[in-house]
Amino acid sequence: MTAQPFHGVLVPVLTPFTAGGEPDAGRFAAYCRFLLNQGAGGLAIFGTTSEANSMSPGERMVLLDRLVEAGIPAGKLMPGTGACAVTDAAMLVRHAVEHGCGGVLMLPPFYYKPVSDDGIFAFISNVIDNAGSAALRIYLYHIPPVAVVGYSLDLVGRLITAYPQTVVGLKDSSGDWSNTAALLERHPGFAVFPGSEVFLLEALRKGGAGCITATGNINVPGIAKLYQNWQGPQADALQEAVTTVRKTMQAYPMVPALKRVVAHFRDDPGWAAVRPPLVPLDRAQSAALIADLGRIGFALGEPRQRAAAE
Amino acid sequence: MTAQPFHGVLVPVLTPFTAGGEPDAGRFAAYCRFLLNQGAGGLAIFGTTSEANSMSPGERMVLLDRLVEAGIPAGKLMPGTGACAVTDAAMLVRHAVEHGCGGVLMLPPFYYKPVSDDGIFAFISNVIDNAGSAALRIYLYHIPPVAVVGYSLDLVGRLITAYPQTVVGLKDSSGDWSNTAALLERHPGFAVFPGSEVFLLEALRKGGAGCITATGNINVPGIAKLYQNWQGPQADALQEAVTTVRKTMQAYPMVPALKRVVAHFRDDPGWAAVRPPLVPLDRAQSAALIADLGRIGFALGEPRQRAAAE
Repeated sequence: MTAQPFHGVLVPVLTPFTAGGEPDAGRFAAYCRFLLNQGAGGLAIFGTTSEANSMSPGERMVLLDRLVEAGIPAGKLMPGTGACAVTDAAMLVRHAVEHGCGGVLMLPPFYYKPVSDDGIFAFISNVIDNAGSAALRIYLYHIPPVAVVGYSLDLVGRLITAYPQTVVGLKDSSGDWSNTAALLERHPGFAVFPGSEVFLLEALRKGGAGCITATGNINVPGIAKLYQNWQGPQADALQEAVTTVRKTMQAYPMVPALKRVVAHFRDDPGWAAVRPPLVPLDRAQSAALIADLGRIGFALGEPRQRAAAE
Repeated sequence: MTAQPFHGVLVPVLTPFTAGGEPDAGRFAAYCRFLLNQGAGGLAIFGTTSEANSMSPGERMVLLDRLVEAGIPAGKLMPGTGACAVTDAAMLVRHAVEHGCGGVLMLPPFYYKPVSDDGIFAFISNVIDNAGSAALRIYLYHIPPVAVVGYSLDLVGRLITAYPQTVVGLKDSSGDWSNTAALLERHPGFAVFPGSEVFLLEALRKGGAGCITATGNINVPGIAKLYQNWQGPQADALQEAVTTVRKTMQAYPMVPALKRVVAHFRDDPGWAAVRPPLVPLDRAQSAALIADLGRIGFALGEPRQRAAAE
């Protein structure tokens, strides 16, 4: 197993859109810098939370170009490079490798259902062969509640065995702790990131690498504090605090709700825009969400619930 | 409701690949011509059976260019233009309209689940507005067993009401006859195509426009004969004959099995190639499939079971 380039709190960064519906590279770079300054261990740009699959491969590559031009360190970036077409996935992976990204997050091809482990293995092999780079680090992106197609435990084992220097980790957004625990037990040294901070403390106690979580967009400080203090006396209280924020958000459609929170706390209404098929929160939902966050004492960048846990 | 450019047996044409895994425009054009000569009412290129989502948008557009250059009439083409990204879908639709295609077959955006009817409506609206063409004819592609996301009956009604000259039909691959029947009852004049010839006779009796079916790739003559004679005394026997072919194929993974049949009857082994994540039939499956077809007296281009029904 290779050295691991990522650990801690990784954020699948929200993608801001202009009033005309185009990806907004300026706002995006500024937000990436803000998240790194808050202590994010890496930026999993172009994930589900990023509406990556609502952008063309070309739009994603231009955004990555602009981020690197803006000075965001490529080594901190783990762009999502999954696609239904192996040609698109291979192109996105080559582009990320050319930029020196620390790694890539790979959805399995998600159109056909059911699809065999052999077929997914062939797809990933094809992408790796096509990239032809010893620098490539792939993190498998397992999110069956959305992609439906996922990486079975057997398939993960096959991929690690075939590509030990390349297939180095996995984001587990199954929401199924027993799957995360099985991965941690079977593959020591393989970087397993639960897809929610709700499982962070439990994962760290079994050797997890951190988490890659949507709510990292609004709560890096709280989650990073748990990551840094997981062996300390306050660990359970810190876990409870971040879980409270997560559960509050989970009562709303996650991506539009996160964008609404960012728009509110940055006083920048344009941040709330989503691309179809997602729809923004309506006025009543927005007011209820902000009120709910107020009740738990949350503020973006200054999560006051941390004080309570200290 | 506008005049309907398509009826009869529409084929979601298989996409041949070269030994190197590239779309094979030459084999593709030749096969499209063969299907039209056999009596196909239209070619729904770039559907699920075509492995369209295993190709990049650019690869699909080049294939369409090559087909038209090869003399396949654009008016007979109904390319699949669905994509997860509204920018990709809009680009594919504009390209099809520029070529004068008879229509386009639109998957809903299929990454996010669940997604609201409002979100899908906004996506389709965005594509229509972007195309800005009175010539655009959209056929909705409802295939929840694969795409998971689908078009609800309510959403279909909303789209027809909003775009009566543009949203003119639907392919129903739900496999749920009650859904097809409800569409036929609610929207006279709207072109409803079941996604399987198993439902063809029943659909025609309720005003259906024909069918768009994977097995059209190997059985246009049999299905076209049923379409032409659905009010005749042999209709039930003709239905039974095509259903027998369909059920035989359904015992195998459909796309690799269809390609194996084409490879066998054209004596062209290269036709069997699929792109990952699909995998070709293995030797034993291939032999069993050809034996099964032999038992029902099937031969590509000369479906002998027709004789029995005559």
